[in-house]
Amino acid sequence: MELFRALTILQSCREIARHMNVPRRKKTVPFQEALGFRLFEDVRSPEDVPGFDRSTMDGYAVRARDTFGASESMPAYLDVAGEVFMGRGAAGSAVPGKAWRISTGGMLPEGCDAVVMVEHTEELDAATIGVTRPVAPGENIVRRGEDISAGDLIIPGGQVIRPQELGVLAAAGITGVDVVDPLRVAIISTGDEVVPPTRAPGPGQVRDVNSYTLYGLVRRAGSLPVLSGIVGDDYGRLKDIMAAEMTRSDIILLSGGSSVGARDVSARVIESLGSPGILFHGISIRPGKPTIGAVVEGKPVFGLPGHPVSAMVVFTLLVEPLLTRGRYPLDEDEFLLEFPVTARITRNLRSAAGREDFVRVGLRQEGGQILADPVLGKSGLIATMARAAGLARIPPDLEGVEAGDFVRVKLI
Amino acid sequence: MELFRALTILQSCREIARHMNVPRRKKTVPFQEALGFRLFEDVRSPEDVPGFDRSTMDGYAVRARDTFGASESMPAYLDVAGEVFMGRGAAGSAVPGKAWRISTGGMLPEGCDAVVMVEHTEELDAATIGVTRPVAPGENIVRRGEDISAGDLIIPGGQVIRPQELGVLAAAGITGVDVVDPLRVAIISTGDEVVPPTRAPGPGQVRDVNSYTLYGLVRRAGSLPVLSGIVGDDYGRLKDIMAAEMTRSDIILLSGGSSVGARDVSARVIESLGSPGILFHGISIRPGKPTIGAVVEGKPVFGLPGHPVSAMVVFTLLVEPLLTRGRYPLDEDEFLLEFPVTARITRNLRSAAGREDFVRVGLRQEGGQILADPVLGKSGLIATMARAAGLARIPPDLEGVEAGDFVRVKLI
Repeated sequence: MELFRALTILQSCREIARHMNVPRRKKTVPFQEALGFRLFEDVRSPEDVPGFDRSTMDGYAVRARDTFGASESMPAYLDVAGEVFMGRGAAGSAVPGKAWRISTGGMLPEGCDAVVMVEHTEELDAATIGVTRPVAPGENIVRRGEDISAGDLIIPGGQVIRPQELGVLAAAGITGVDVVDPLRVAIISTGDEVVPPTRAPGPGQVRDVNSYTLYGLVRRAGSLPVLSGIVGDDYGRLKDIMAAEMTRSDIILLSGGSSVGARDVSARVIESLGSPGILFHGISIRPGKPTIGAVVEGKPVFGLPGHPVSAMVVFTLLVEPLLTRGRYPLDEDEFLLEFPVTARITRNLRSAAGREDFVRVGLRQEGGQILADPVLGKSGLIATMARAAGLARIPPDLEGVEAGDFVRVKLI
Repeated sequence: MELFRALTILQSCREIARHMNVPRRKKTVPFQEALGFRLFEDVRSPEDVPGFDRSTMDGYAVRARDTFGASESMPAYLDVAGEVFMGRGAAGSAVPGKAWRISTGGMLPEGCDAVVMVEHTEELDAATIGVTRPVAPGENIVRRGEDISAGDLIIPGGQVIRPQELGVLAAAGITGVDVVDPLRVAIISTGDEVVPPTRAPGPGQVRDVNSYTLYGLVRRAGSLPVLSGIVGDDYGRLKDIMAAEMTRSDIILLSGGSSVGARDVSARVIESLGSPGILFHGISIRPGKPTIGAVVEGKPVFGLPGHPVSAMVVFTLLVEPLLTRGRYPLDEDEFLLEFPVTARITRNLRSAAGREDFVRVGLRQEGGQILADPVLGKSGLIATMARAAGLARIPPDLEGVEAGDFVRVKLI
């Protein structure tokens, strides 16, 4: 097979993006069930929230101008016109010199434009108060539509729906939403040596790890993992299974096998399925170098390394963005924001210029800063990943980092 | 009602922790379904992973000592004894001067202790190779049990099961695990002005926002939200509902109402349910000050502020740790690790000494660093929360931050 040069991560992403055609299917769900899904399109509010001027304090609703000049020694005297009850309209409208008792959240009577806090009033008798401090128009109130105005874009299309988006939808009375139907991601493990976790491995056999880490990663990214099983180094069987997945899945992940034979079978099967086929074979990262990136009839197909840590790293870089955003980072800055934690590394680590390294780290807070302790171990060792809280990035322009240097970390 | 002094967050946590008795119920699930749950107790591996010495390269399995002294000009000549097939035991054991063809992941024949990369060999004929570079014992292999040794603690009890933990469980052949059964969290909205999102608000009415943000927060934290509905400022009804929740929920969240009347009703009902009752009323944070913390017969009961942003902030600080870890942070360092992002704030912000502030921020990467842009707006405005990516913390010993200062941010 022809030799491919190793691409950078962003180059790899661009190659896939240039050929892929990942579907965006619409699905309508009750808003509560939309948690964790991505919004299909922009959502605008049909109405103002709140629907009326609202008090943010306990006190008296007034016309602000009636309080101008008031002070402790010279209070402004106002007649108490009544009380605003929670959840009801006011019984009247503002006329000069009148005040209404109001609670936090209460609706201002028409014509009132401010609330005097109860602490800045004195009750003279049941029908009269003295205001001891002036209020400006708009003080201690939330105006109609101040939270959300009718027509406002409240959640942009593509946004993942978090708890606060549920709140915004509830506030605007939007109880059903269109979300992006999760992508179906087929997961196939390859290799004559791989047996399911339920089986005791015989001599030379190992249990399937990658199917389950990938299953977890796909689910955590809000998509639908489809475990398509384990296939030996068998061209015909792998081709049948992949051809079937091409008809029902949106993305296909092949992982392992680690042997030359298995790698070769995977590559030949991918090439046989359609065009453009394999786009690159090798990325300039560690771990994860021996990755195959392909697109077949618009569907991304990845040949992930057999080593569990490598497979997880490559998934995180090349697959996860498609699931959580439907696209790759547009530039280096957007990519770096995926590594939001800044920490001091606690050991010297060597890298190679031109290669981007991802180091498993534990994280702890000490002396006012976050420390990243490298978890040492080969990329075949899944136990090292379970001991890690994050992946620290060593940029391609460095030949390593020294203890005390800052690194950027993605939580995993 | 008696006045309570405002506590710090850690003091609040300690008060709750001192009286609470949150249950840990065991639930056994197939390992794949354990994703996102917390492990009930330590899990140890019943066996070695891998179960045999394994090659990490394509090449020849050898006794390392047979290659000592080998060089390009003076290769060590070895007889090829055969080939190790993937997923099978070797056909023989090592005898001096013999080499076996082996692929990455293959099982070393007994007595072999290293693998020579194929690049460092030359094939003289079908039965003989020359080794052009020596290998040390253990080179290019993973030893039996090097990933996981039988008896190793592979996942500590209490750990949340992530994709990599699924991988470790699969590797060790553990296909069913005991997890902590999710806590049931009752969510009750109070206030005469609150109507469900399905209803068009009349004059003075607003839709229930907090039930849904809290629902999302509880679910995201891996627990079971139970929406117990909206209760007006009605002592009897609230007491009935809370008494019912006391028998079936583990934690009770009351939110709103914002009026004096509603706050008072909530506090009286909490006090009536059992002991010790209300532990504090007010935390020295912003937003979120008017929070009631209580424990009734071992169950934490929180009276969250009515303002949506305040309720979310207080949930994050006082409720979330109980759901995700079953306990509060032990100290300031553990608490700070919950704010793992370091960013430069882009505006001056004022705070008050002795008070801890949490500021909604957007995050962007620019010029090699992460910038935190404060999202301005009152704590009653849920739309501001939907525009935020994180909560930046202004520590209690500061009176504010200046543009360019570093802040610690929790992603929300």
